[in-house]
Amino acid sequence: MKVLITGGAGFLGKRLAKRLLARGTLKNAQGQEERIDELVLFDVVPAEGFTDPRVKVVTGDIADPNALNAIVDTRTTSIFHLAAIVSSQAEADFDLGMRINVDALRLLFETCRRLGHCPRVVFTSSVAVFGGKLPEVVQNDTALNPKSSYGVQKAIGELLLSDFSRKGFIDGRGLRLPTISVRPGKPNKAASSFASGIIREPLHAEESVCPVTRDTRLWLLSPRQAIECLMFAHDLGSETFAETRMVNLPGVSVTVGEMVETLGKVAGKAAVDKVRWESDATIQRIVGSWPGRWDMTRAHSLGFRGDADFESIVRAFIADDMDGKVRV
Amino acid sequence: MKVLITGGAGFLGKRLAKRLLARGTLKNAQGQEERIDELVLFDVVPAEGFTDPRVKVVTGDIADPNALNAIVDTRTTSIFHLAAIVSSQAEADFDLGMRINVDALRLLFETCRRLGHCPRVVFTSSVAVFGGKLPEVVQNDTALNPKSSYGVQKAIGELLLSDFSRKGFIDGRGLRLPTISVRPGKPNKAASSFASGIIREPLHAEESVCPVTRDTRLWLLSPRQAIECLMFAHDLGSETFAETRMVNLPGVSVTVGEMVETLGKVAGKAAVDKVRWESDATIQRIVGSWPGRWDMTRAHSLGFRGDADFESIVRAFIADDMDGKVRV
Repeated sequence: MKVLITGGAGFLGKRLAKRLLARGTLKNAQGQEERIDELVLFDVVPAEGFTDPRVKVVTGDIADPNALNAIVDTRTTSIFHLAAIVSSQAEADFDLGMRINVDALRLLFETCRRLGHCPRVVFTSSVAVFGGKLPEVVQNDTALNPKSSYGVQKAIGELLLSDFSRKGFIDGRGLRLPTISVRPGKPNKAASSFASGIIREPLHAEESVCPVTRDTRLWLLSPRQAIECLMFAHDLGSETFAETRMVNLPGVSVTVGEMVETLGKVAGKAAVDKVRWESDATIQRIVGSWPGRWDMTRAHSLGFRGDADFESIVRAFIADDMDGKVRV
Repeated sequence: MKVLITGGAGFLGKRLAKRLLARGTLKNAQGQEERIDELVLFDVVPAEGFTDPRVKVVTGDIADPNALNAIVDTRTTSIFHLAAIVSSQAEADFDLGMRINVDALRLLFETCRRLGHCPRVVFTSSVAVFGGKLPEVVQNDTALNPKSSYGVQKAIGELLLSDFSRKGFIDGRGLRLPTISVRPGKPNKAASSFASGIIREPLHAEESVCPVTRDTRLWLLSPRQAIECLMFAHDLGSETFAETRMVNLPGVSVTVGEMVETLGKVAGKAAVDKVRWESDATIQRIVGSWPGRWDMTRAHSLGFRGDADFESIVRAFIADDMDGKVRV
């Protein structure tokens, strides 16, 4: 089988690619493990660090029909659609957000529709689709009332995934991701970038700015478990998604203050002292509109698994991305 | 002020136009009644029957940017966006539905954005945005899980209305309309067309086919009250829509069996005998996925008013569209 990852040069895309190459198979539409012959990593910049002969690195503009025609064909039975403009960037550049988060997604689905082979499409949605007055615990079927352009664009993506699937054009499955923490690498343009930065930078003895208040509550998932959930969603049978295509993934509910306390527990006061508190009203407004927890009944009953607690998340980051060594 | 009605040759568009011409004013952004100097009726076919000098009838393709540039300018302070592909047609022709219900709506909003004058935009959404497992009584914030392409497209329209408004590009207000009954004129391509036909045709001594079962529950609003609600929504202050741009309009909950009983009460057995029961699985599936009632608290607290009961709806139709005379 041929697998496509859009956003394949991104941090989640690359990590998913490595995990898929190690596993070597995915379940096919008949529920059998099938060998991955080709893994296409598509992004606007080349995905680096891959020497495996199964990998094909392709660059291009995902909103360009020709680019999509070049990477999707009837052998492409599995697509992980991770390409997106992140939250703060989509808020700052409305047109770019619409172009990538809505138009490119629709073009990808239309490309599949034209080919007619109904591939499995795993789409990543977000906590950001929720907003406004929320119940204490958000449910899988809580109404979407997003208060950011990113959230609106992801909600439109969910609706399109659902209707293209209902029409039989694709076999979509959508995952609402908690905020992913701890991400390795550099800060990005997500409003939630700090949710990784305030742990990652101090563990490297670097300073990090926290733009929100200590009592801001986040709903978090580690990269390690996020990748497992993406593959798990792919492998579920289509009948799982008959009533709704969306699953709210498991998460851990913590305040930013509790996150920094955990940092101290794991890496000591020197790490905690690297966090500088400098509020940013825009980021506070966007992140504060997201739910701090949601009900996990559907996710758990389907078999999705998150993290035990935030300390496990920090320790997973140290193990996976710091060779097990704290540097502060 | 200049007012634009898209779908201005449609039955609701024409009726709204007549009502606006009779009233002569709408509230402006400052909350004051302001004279309507120009009323543009835009549609794919000409709106007929208007001789009032304030009316400008324009035809064109609403998905064409040039057509929109020709009808919207900075004097256009009020837009009633009624143009749409109806439910059964959007289900049969997916591309046409997306083109008009999504792309043209976005283009209209983008045209306003470029002009920069933030007009009031009244958008009509539908019962069809709801679907799947629904609570006994749908709430204003029940999650949208539409089971038709029309419903998905209207839900996308709601999200765009909300985000374009939040960004200050338009001042949108969205009304979720119950099924409108009793419509005058011919049957149309809405799945709910029968909800008017089974009353209208028998009252004219003509036969009508009912494609759904007697126990199918509908949520109805008369054309008369729908028009009042459209104007009322326009005139509300922008602050009304701070938390959500959408309002579920009041309706009357009746089964199709009860509708035909009421027909008998108003027009006798001869009328009832004109209804032929012939089930249609597609229509039953689409209409059966819609809510049969929803909570009216928000609508009523804002001051929206529906109909007293289904008998009032039938009698309003006879008064408004049959010159008060039953013809069976």
